[in-house]
Amino acid sequence: MENKNSSRPIALRQFEAADGFWKEKMELVRTEVIPYQWEILNDRVEGASPSFCMRNFKIAGKLMREKKEKGSAFEEPVYTFRGFEALPEDMNHLEDRFYGFVFQDSDFSKWIEAVAYTLVNHPDPELERTADEAIDIVCNAQMENGYLDTYYIINGMDQSFSNLKDHHELYCLGHLIEGAVAYYEATGKDRLLRAAMKFADYIDSCFGPQEGKRKGYPGHEIAEMALIRLYEVTGEKRYLNLACFFIDERGKQPYYWDCESTETQKDGERYEYYQAHRPVREQDEAVGHAVRAVYLYSGMADASRIMDDESLKKACRQLWQSIVREKMYITGAIGGTHIGESFSFPFDLPNDTAYAETCASIGLVFFARRMLEMEPDAVYADVMERALYNSVLSGMALDGKSFFYVNPLEVLPEACQKDERKFHVKPVRQKWFGCACCPPNLSRMISSVPSYAYTENEDSLFMHLHLSGAITKQIQGITASFSVQSGMPWDGKVIITYTARESAVMKLAVRIPGWCGQWKASGLETFHCTLENGYYYIEGSWENGSQIVFDFDMQTRFYQADDRVRENAGRLAVMRGPVVYCAEQADNGPDLHLFHIDAAEPVQEETITIEGQSYPSLIVSAQKKIKSDNEVQLYTVYQKPEYEHAQLKMIPYFAWANRGENEMAVWFFGWDQ
Amino acid sequence: MENKNSSRPIALRQFEAADGFWKEKMELVRTEVIPYQWEILNDRVEGASPSFCMRNFKIAGKLMREKKEKGSAFEEPVYTFRGFEALPEDMNHLEDRFYGFVFQDSDFSKWIEAVAYTLVNHPDPELERTADEAIDIVCNAQMENGYLDTYYIINGMDQSFSNLKDHHELYCLGHLIEGAVAYYEATGKDRLLRAAMKFADYIDSCFGPQEGKRKGYPGHEIAEMALIRLYEVTGEKRYLNLACFFIDERGKQPYYWDCESTETQKDGERYEYYQAHRPVREQDEAVGHAVRAVYLYSGMADASRIMDDESLKKACRQLWQSIVREKMYITGAIGGTHIGESFSFPFDLPNDTAYAETCASIGLVFFARRMLEMEPDAVYADVMERALYNSVLSGMALDGKSFFYVNPLEVLPEACQKDERKFHVKPVRQKWFGCACCPPNLSRMISSVPSYAYTENEDSLFMHLHLSGAITKQIQGITASFSVQSGMPWDGKVIITYTARESAVMKLAVRIPGWCGQWKASGLETFHCTLENGYYYIEGSWENGSQIVFDFDMQTRFYQADDRVRENAGRLAVMRGPVVYCAEQADNGPDLHLFHIDAAEPVQEETITIEGQSYPSLIVSAQKKIKSDNEVQLYTVYQKPEYEHAQLKMIPYFAWANRGENEMAVWFFGWDQ
Repeated sequence: MENKNSSRPIALRQFEAADGFWKEKMELVRTEVIPYQWEILNDRVEGASPSFCMRNFKIAGKLMREKKEKGSAFEEPVYTFRGFEALPEDMNHLEDRFYGFVFQDSDFSKWIEAVAYTLVNHPDPELERTADEAIDIVCNAQMENGYLDTYYIINGMDQSFSNLKDHHELYCLGHLIEGAVAYYEATGKDRLLRAAMKFADYIDSCFGPQEGKRKGYPGHEIAEMALIRLYEVTGEKRYLNLACFFIDERGKQPYYWDCESTETQKDGERYEYYQAHRPVREQDEAVGHAVRAVYLYSGMADASRIMDDESLKKACRQLWQSIVREKMYITGAIGGTHIGESFSFPFDLPNDTAYAETCASIGLVFFARRMLEMEPDAVYADVMERALYNSVLSGMALDGKSFFYVNPLEVLPEACQKDERKFHVKPVRQKWFGCACCPPNLSRMISSVPSYAYTENEDSLFMHLHLSGAITKQIQGITASFSVQSGMPWDGKVIITYTARESAVMKLAVRIPGWCGQWKASGLETFHCTLENGYYYIEGSWENGSQIVFDFDMQTRFYQADDRVRENAGRLAVMRGPVVYCAEQADNGPDLHLFHIDAAEPVQEETITIEGQSYPSLIVSAQKKIKSDNEVQLYTVYQKPEYEHAQLKMIPYFAWANRGENEMAVWFFGWDQ
Repeated sequence: MENKNSSRPIALRQFEAADGFWKEKMELVRTEVIPYQWEILNDRVEGASPSFCMRNFKIAGKLMREKKEKGSAFEEPVYTFRGFEALPEDMNHLEDRFYGFVFQDSDFSKWIEAVAYTLVNHPDPELERTADEAIDIVCNAQMENGYLDTYYIINGMDQSFSNLKDHHELYCLGHLIEGAVAYYEATGKDRLLRAAMKFADYIDSCFGPQEGKRKGYPGHEIAEMALIRLYEVTGEKRYLNLACFFIDERGKQPYYWDCESTETQKDGERYEYYQAHRPVREQDEAVGHAVRAVYLYSGMADASRIMDDESLKKACRQLWQSIVREKMYITGAIGGTHIGESFSFPFDLPNDTAYAETCASIGLVFFARRMLEMEPDAVYADVMERALYNSVLSGMALDGKSFFYVNPLEVLPEACQKDERKFHVKPVRQKWFGCACCPPNLSRMISSVPSYAYTENEDSLFMHLHLSGAITKQIQGITASFSVQSGMPWDGKVIITYTARESAVMKLAVRIPGWCGQWKASGLETFHCTLENGYYYIEGSWENGSQIVFDFDMQTRFYQADDRVRENAGRLAVMRGPVVYCAEQADNGPDLHLFHIDAAEPVQEETITIEGQSYPSLIVSAQKKIKSDNEVQLYTVYQKPEYEHAQLKMIPYFAWANRGENEMAVWFFGWDQ
């Protein structure tokens, strides 16, 4: 049913990354983050909050073997949604019970997903053995009927599905599927895939439109896109149907959650947080918990592509617009308020109290790629690229050892420490979190970035991000192959060479970035070229050695926000290519708010080395307000302010907070009025 | 022991207000607010949250008569600190129990205090009869031993004094004393005064340095200043001693509250909220709940004046500086954060999320006058005047029928409705509050304003505010009298005429306002004049008809904030005399953030009529940024902004939000860089 314009991500094995920006990040995840995460999952990192993740699976498995299923003695988890509470004082004497958040199982699933992505191009027998052993532990916890959520297995299955709104059984299912499919695709091993299918089949037997089945849907979305992925790898249509059921059931009245047996607030308005306040096709504003929202929209985009469902596509486009037109930071971050980790109202994008969760940006990348799969339009890829290079990457320290949950655009460390309204904003990255959703989400995102850079359909290969490496594509029975040399995001030259012996007639669609003012391409003589929706389609017969060279202008540009963004009134931000820049106290001293950028002056470039990595830094001409010489009064009679010429040294936003705690800002007053 | 420089407020009967700004406000309180409040106290206003205040006294009194004191069956109040919860559905079938906040009794005390102030110059037999009946009800609830807090009388005295930190027995004592003293001074009737003394004596028998007495102190301060007031009217030194005990015991380690029988957080850091984190003489930064803080500091200032206690005076001066130098809005509001209704860190004064509670500004006026009593320095009076004309008055609608708890300096109604971080900020005044501290506090403040305008000592009369009326002073056995004609706050001419037949040799000390750039005085020929600490001392023999005319320049002036106030970087505010101005959408359309004030251009004055009252409005020259013609993207390449000339119409800040819900702002970008 899919539309012929749609495309699908390449398999990771079709791409081998070459040296460059993203390969470095992928290697960091492979060598630093994934091994560290495994230690975390097993509670072996001193000083880090224990995860209990693998421990829960072990206890659930043992309970199953001994048939010690609990009855009604349902215990609360030690963690609550509000954070860590009442942790056992002596970690050596834990009871045989569930510890952690209700969604703790998903940490394993995200880890195995990231492991899978790295194994594709980096076989590692030891890592694979560890993964297989972990999978054994997980599968051993699965119940006979397929159910697999340790929180309820341990605490008592009589309560299962009693609180779909706030507990996370279907969320855990979704992540399990994502991990299982990835591991199957990477290794060909199907033990975890079968477990995921068995769990999905059990869910399918409990939920659906048929009489006697529950009409519920996930409180935290992800199962929708995961089930569609499972459908696409297995061809089993029941998974697609179940995903569509979850999507279409959402927000129908009377609200399912109102009828749940647990005490829930019977208040449709509150369901905005869950995007369940009305049917998804009637939703026209991105609201509520930002991660939940973009996960749902991703599933909707998948479903609408596969079903070629125009009304669902329309809702996706509308929700997309709502985000990128009214609710997205220039860094690609979303979630203007920490209250409910949510979208705020249109154009309310405070820089210093932003929530801007790393996971939400990752979810926006998911949504963007799925919109691209639905219809190739560079506006989606522009946002995907914006989020990846800025708000996603800022979630991780340059050494891969600490992480941000919240990615603000302005930080005054004193405020983070003393002003409770900013306690969610941390001036330095943390080692790990009690609610550790972001770090493992970063792992799976970064290690699969080639599948976001390239999609394909029967006769076309789409290059959304200009990622260096070797890429292959099956076409007309032959294996077409390209080598891509790209300096992105620092250098705009992209050299694409056809490397296969056999020639292929096909289209290569190269995205022209929205941030690029001028560009040129050479080597096009023998091709038919058209520019459509931001993609440059190069069609013709590709011969060994055919080479196209793109040159994208990377000049630094200043940006302004829509006038309705009050926080940014009179301010401007700086980008170089897709990279948002910021200024830190480390380079400029304190009082960043006194700088006014003079956009009329040329910008100088230097090189800065942070944590052993070199980046272009920008020297921006500015006027710095001279502090009033006023030791006596808080308010004094206004005097025409005096300024001194100053240079504002700016670094890539994603590299901030790698030199200790200090002031940072993205938006600066403009000098010219 | 008092220093000879100190002074005391005049008694209200020494002053008769003449027509003018404050008389109008006082009349509004007398004719509108006080009668309305009485209805509220008796739960007779439809649609308003019930107070239960008088009802609790009645129930407590009945219980006492029937000796039905409860034992240990201690019930929680229906209201909690978090707000109204679980109100009885059928108000006609309330149980005979305590309803409301634990400090509900204080609403009566504030009301009787305001009633007393109005009775001084407006005898009203009917109101006085109502007041006497109310006093009967209150006194009837008092226990044999003097205890008088209905929460514990009704719920069980076994729990009394078990949670000094969060319950409000000593706070209720303090307000009872304030009301009782005022009523005694106004009417000469001492029934309530005797009840207050009896309660104070009981407290004195329970608290103090002697062995066997409790070493506790109030969780919410006010008893300190109230007990000193009781000492000053009765001459009973035990009340002064008790006040000093409360002041000096505060913050000593080990913390008394840690030893209380109830569950309290044993964490000294948390006691910052209560200003009990360290001994008061060691406190050098205004922290915690803003109302509590200034009430404490007021008591400290009283004690330090009476005891001529230099180390306590030093602490008062330091805490004063901390407020006015680092933590006060230009309107005289305090409390930068709604979290804990508290001071934020130095220079953190957000305009749109301000707490700026009306009661805190009133408390700042208390503190300021007590500093003035300690030492005449116009800096104190400047702040007192700033708060009175701006953040105090803005707490009440021009018709006296609705009230603000929170007084922000910038409001976008959409944000108040949609952004939970601003839910405490209301774009229009409310009729009444569940926690109704501010409206009755406004009543007692406004109806006693002459005692803030004028203080005296043996040979001097201090004019802090230039309030129109007739004032008398006993000196050398004769009654000196002055008539003051003042156009304040709109007109700077102040005519002071000596009206007594007999001449008097004395000093009149007239404050030269800090906001006044130029001033002149005439009629001084026969006097010896000196300017000291902002007061113009006019010394000599005053004869009938002696007339001094002051002329204070009222020119509109622009103000800037300290550079460390980041919210106000690049911004300016407008004042005319002591009155802060603001702009509203009603006069200027929406998007106030697009206006840049051109301070180099002259300001025009017009008259505006709001709610039947006329005020000078200001027409300020401005440049308004022309909105970018951008329908497509949230972020676009920066273009030099274009402006159009515009006029910004400004009104007195205290008069805002009297024309429905709309945008408002005090601070505007300056045009010149």
